[in-house]
Amino acid sequence: MALPKVLLGAIKWAHEDVKALFDGIADVTELSPGGKYSDTTAIFRSYMPVLRRFDKELIDHLPPSVKWIATSSAGYDSLDVEALKAKGIYLSNTPAAVDDATATTALFLIIAAMRQFSRAERSLRDLKWKPVGISAGSHDLTGKTLAILGLGGIGLRIAELVQAFPMRVIYHNRRKVEGAPEYCEYFEDVEEMLKQADVLSISVPLNASTTGIVGEKWIRTMKRGSVIVNTARGGVIDEDALLRALEDGHLGSVGLDVLLNEPHINPRILEFPNITLLPHMGTDTRDTQWKMEVRALTNIRDYLVHGMGKDLIPEMRT
Amino acid sequence: MALPKVLLGAIKWAHEDVKALFDGIADVTELSPGGKYSDTTAIFRSYMPVLRRFDKELIDHLPPSVKWIATSSAGYDSLDVEALKAKGIYLSNTPAAVDDATATTALFLIIAAMRQFSRAERSLRDLKWKPVGISAGSHDLTGKTLAILGLGGIGLRIAELVQAFPMRVIYHNRRKVEGAPEYCEYFEDVEEMLKQADVLSISVPLNASTTGIVGEKWIRTMKRGSVIVNTARGGVIDEDALLRALEDGHLGSVGLDVLLNEPHINPRILEFPNITLLPHMGTDTRDTQWKMEVRALTNIRDYLVHGMGKDLIPEMRT
Repeated sequence: MALPKVLLGAIKWAHEDVKALFDGIADVTELSPGGKYSDTTAIFRSYMPVLRRFDKELIDHLPPSVKWIATSSAGYDSLDVEALKAKGIYLSNTPAAVDDATATTALFLIIAAMRQFSRAERSLRDLKWKPVGISAGSHDLTGKTLAILGLGGIGLRIAELVQAFPMRVIYHNRRKVEGAPEYCEYFEDVEEMLKQADVLSISVPLNASTTGIVGEKWIRTMKRGSVIVNTARGGVIDEDALLRALEDGHLGSVGLDVLLNEPHINPRILEFPNITLLPHMGTDTRDTQWKMEVRALTNIRDYLVHGMGKDLIPEMRT
Repeated sequence: MALPKVLLGAIKWAHEDVKALFDGIADVTELSPGGKYSDTTAIFRSYMPVLRRFDKELIDHLPPSVKWIATSSAGYDSLDVEALKAKGIYLSNTPAAVDDATATTALFLIIAAMRQFSRAERSLRDLKWKPVGISAGSHDLTGKTLAILGLGGIGLRIAELVQAFPMRVIYHNRRKVEGAPEYCEYFEDVEEMLKQADVLSISVPLNASTTGIVGEKWIRTMKRGSVIVNTARGGVIDEDALLRALEDGHLGSVGLDVLLNEPHINPRILEFPNITLLPHMGTDTRDTQWKMEVRALTNIRDYLVHGMGKDLIPEMRT
């Protein structure tokens, strides 16, 4: 009997693992643009220029043999879940694999924003040494209060990392997280949480109910001089409200790993000295990308062997 | 009886504390350039353009009434200790007050260098999104080995902060540190330590025996692709050897909060994409500068009240 065919997007680090995971189990083809894979059972999807966005049109044109898509990412906002469900295609992500690297990115942005390091580096590189009076707007992390919006795997890892200082950790989810560490204090009311925060770190997925939720109202509920960092998705923040608050000094500084229309950047963002910017580097390490690749590949393998992968997205669970 | 006179350099945050510490104990004068303070007993010295460098010439011209200089800094390499001793002037620094902010700066540089974040931010600001292939040279901190050269107060705090990941911590001092945490592994032999390190963080004071010690030999003893961060003093590193190792790829990346001839920068440093640079921001927060000011002022007060301040520098202890 012929083995099921598996189509892989661009594998970067896990070439050895592909052999170990699939030898004797599937006929694996790595994607080369322009080819035809009309009897493919599963697709490995990475955040690469090829096969980046799986919208309804692309999904509707996938061959009927496709049963599983494994995205090598935690977020899956660029795949149309309803279109996948309508076609009977399963989708898995790589939740836990991204936690450490993304939380480290959040910690970096918290330090950079609270200490004004990005602005200081640009000043030095412009041969102006340090900006006069910069310490007036610079703060230690130790003893300050960090609010985490969305205490999932990434949020929990951020909470762990800042315990080293320690920072006080408060959080909001729709429900209190069962089994969260004692030091994470739950707020049912977002605005009550925001009033007490020195820093807000955003870790919610982007979907219809989170688009633009960090807007005028929430930002103005924070104390004057507060800091916001975002390692989730750009669309969670109302960018205009954010820039207004930076402009009039309500926000002290901001750290962004994600933007509204990546890879494009709103040129106004570049005018604010107190923003630290990264081009979506949350999981950009060889260690973590390897972990993500193996986790995505394992979901395909589990589907082939057991009929179900462990990381089937919540929207597809019954 | 007239109160002893105390001359203060530029106090930025601790104005209220000056009153609380000295009312009824001393006649305090804040420095204004050009004035004369010929009967001053003690001097508060901050890292400000005025009264920055206390060389032999300046010290020899201090009035004979001066008995105590309290520098609001951990390092005192810019004060001539021998000249002070010859004139019978005591010097105190502010050791513990700087630990948290400086160690946070080191952690920032470790993350920035291992993750290539400074280079990525510059690429985004140049509207080039992220550099192609950047993840190949980017690494998670978790599970990697951090070597700390100089496990004093700052080094110990760095060790604490990276325990959150955790990183493995190895260190070298002239002697094993009594009471250091279990997780800090001592190496009597520096080169044995360097062979095992993914990252080297420098926390030794600058003096005759540490000038240029991180040079060709030690750098080449590290593994290819290693990272060096420095929050101590620029002079501890042989800058030419460092740049050569970056140039031929022996070092993967470098993070520097301190430079050889601050505030000047060797223009060659700016040519290397894999360097994260800060203009000596280690203690530049209002929280920490306040702590440092109070600690320096307390040394002056203790000298006036008890005849001795707690942070008299080791070279002056008998």
